[in-house]
Amino acid sequence: MILDGLMLKTKILEAAKEKIRNENLHLTLAIIQVGDNLASNVYIKNKIKACEKVGIKVVYRKINPPTDEEEIIRIIDYFNQDNTVTGIILQSPLPDNLDFGRCSSHILSSKDVDGFTRENIYSLYLNKKGILPCTVKGILCLLREYDICLNGANVAIIGRGNIVGKPLALALENADATVTLCHSKTKNIKDITKNADIVIAACGVPHIVTADMVKENVVVVDVGISKISEKIVGDVDFDNVKEKAAFITPNPGGVGPMTVAMIIDNLIEMGSEQNG
Amino acid sequence: MILDGLMLKTKILEAAKEKIRNENLHLTLAIIQVGDNLASNVYIKNKIKACEKVGIKVVYRKINPPTDEEEIIRIIDYFNQDNTVTGIILQSPLPDNLDFGRCSSHILSSKDVDGFTRENIYSLYLNKKGILPCTVKGILCLLREYDICLNGANVAIIGRGNIVGKPLALALENADATVTLCHSKTKNIKDITKNADIVIAACGVPHIVTADMVKENVVVVDVGISKISEKIVGDVDFDNVKEKAAFITPNPGGVGPMTVAMIIDNLIEMGSEQNG
Repeated sequence: MILDGLMLKTKILEAAKEKIRNENLHLTLAIIQVGDNLASNVYIKNKIKACEKVGIKVVYRKINPPTDEEEIIRIIDYFNQDNTVTGIILQSPLPDNLDFGRCSSHILSSKDVDGFTRENIYSLYLNKKGILPCTVKGILCLLREYDICLNGANVAIIGRGNIVGKPLALALENADATVTLCHSKTKNIKDITKNADIVIAACGVPHIVTADMVKENVVVVDVGISKISEKIVGDVDFDNVKEKAAFITPNPGGVGPMTVAMIIDNLIEMGSEQNG
Repeated sequence: MILDGLMLKTKILEAAKEKIRNENLHLTLAIIQVGDNLASNVYIKNKIKACEKVGIKVVYRKINPPTDEEEIIRIIDYFNQDNTVTGIILQSPLPDNLDFGRCSSHILSSKDVDGFTRENIYSLYLNKKGILPCTVKGILCLLREYDICLNGANVAIIGRGNIVGKPLALALENADATVTLCHSKTKNIKDITKNADIVIAACGVPHIVTADMVKENVVVVDVGISKISEKIVGDVDFDNVKEKAAFITPNPGGVGPMTVAMIIDNLIEMGSEQNG
């Protein structure tokens, strides 16, 4: 069965639009981009489109290099202090000379839509209330929509990035799953994925997850995105793996739309907190 | 082979004593305890003894309940501002009415001997320089002393506590191990431990790790401590597991002394940073 992120995103955005209209919410997302990363351009376009769809205002600030961390932090501080701004996204990646963590750490945790600041990561670590990273929240939301049980499930995550792999491991542990975090140095990865009830690939290596690596009736979530001669390719060999999987995300059309939907979800949550 | 934490602690403290004397370091540890937890009393006594041995001054502040978080935070702030205080330990656990995380988060990250503040946990998460939690650092140090390779090793951690299990998982992932974090909701735990090169038990369940759960030549680290009719008992069935293990910690005499040694190690590191 397909884990249909596109369908669920549509459903979430419709509900969000209604909520924003009915409750007369005034929400604004500030997006800061440095330079002209092609993938970032696409992501930002999708975020803006979703905001427009549900009635969230967007302030989009694009900085052309060369720039420095002070400049970025100055803009973040400006949005921090602007009471009409609900949430702030500093689009990653930044150019190589700029430290993303150092810059984004200046975003107020109450305006941290992406959930990457130390305060929100620390809340996740302690299993306390906070803003969850959007991709992580989107995966949890998608699995919940299809009644996939996390409690006691063996989950293999492939990829230990700060954006998906690591926070996802923490979130799934909080949901009582047993998580193995695999990465480029992992030996006999097949032994681990074969034993997993849920396999989540987030490493950006095209088709690294093949049918022989998973057990029958596995749940497979494909987060990775690579481009091979203009075609978007995921981390999962979808055509073959889907024959064994009980549930599987398409890619594109699975996790990506959920990430965008959760930006909207976080903004609504943050708007309510800020006004409450 | 025994992973002899007691021997290594003695070696580390001797080197520390010499360094402190030769470099004429003036280090002070402030310990805050609330109430009279019996285990805490023993831990604190050991910390004070180690500090005295190497020439670190201790300021020990014991608060009798009833008290509130404001009172504890006031004392933390006092030590934060005192330039002669190198590091601060808020002894856990606190009485039930007090939130440990909320109180300890007031400790300046530069004085956070235990490495539990959000800043140091966030550094650990990002794999950046920071103060490592003492038990975590002690385990890494003990494994390194015996040339046990972490890169690519399959590690099963049993226990997902904030003090050991979770930060240890992050630290081992940073060292390129593949970590599975097991806990009370884990199903078929034996399948996981049987596949592990290193098994680390930190859940406080007496003798939960038995010989049938581990493979030949496994490395076993026992962090847990329980008391059964006045006898200290670890999480590992030592007598039987040691027959299969290539390396194994005794308990007591393994991880416990290493934790104390790393408090000294952290204090020296922090003292140098504060003066540098």
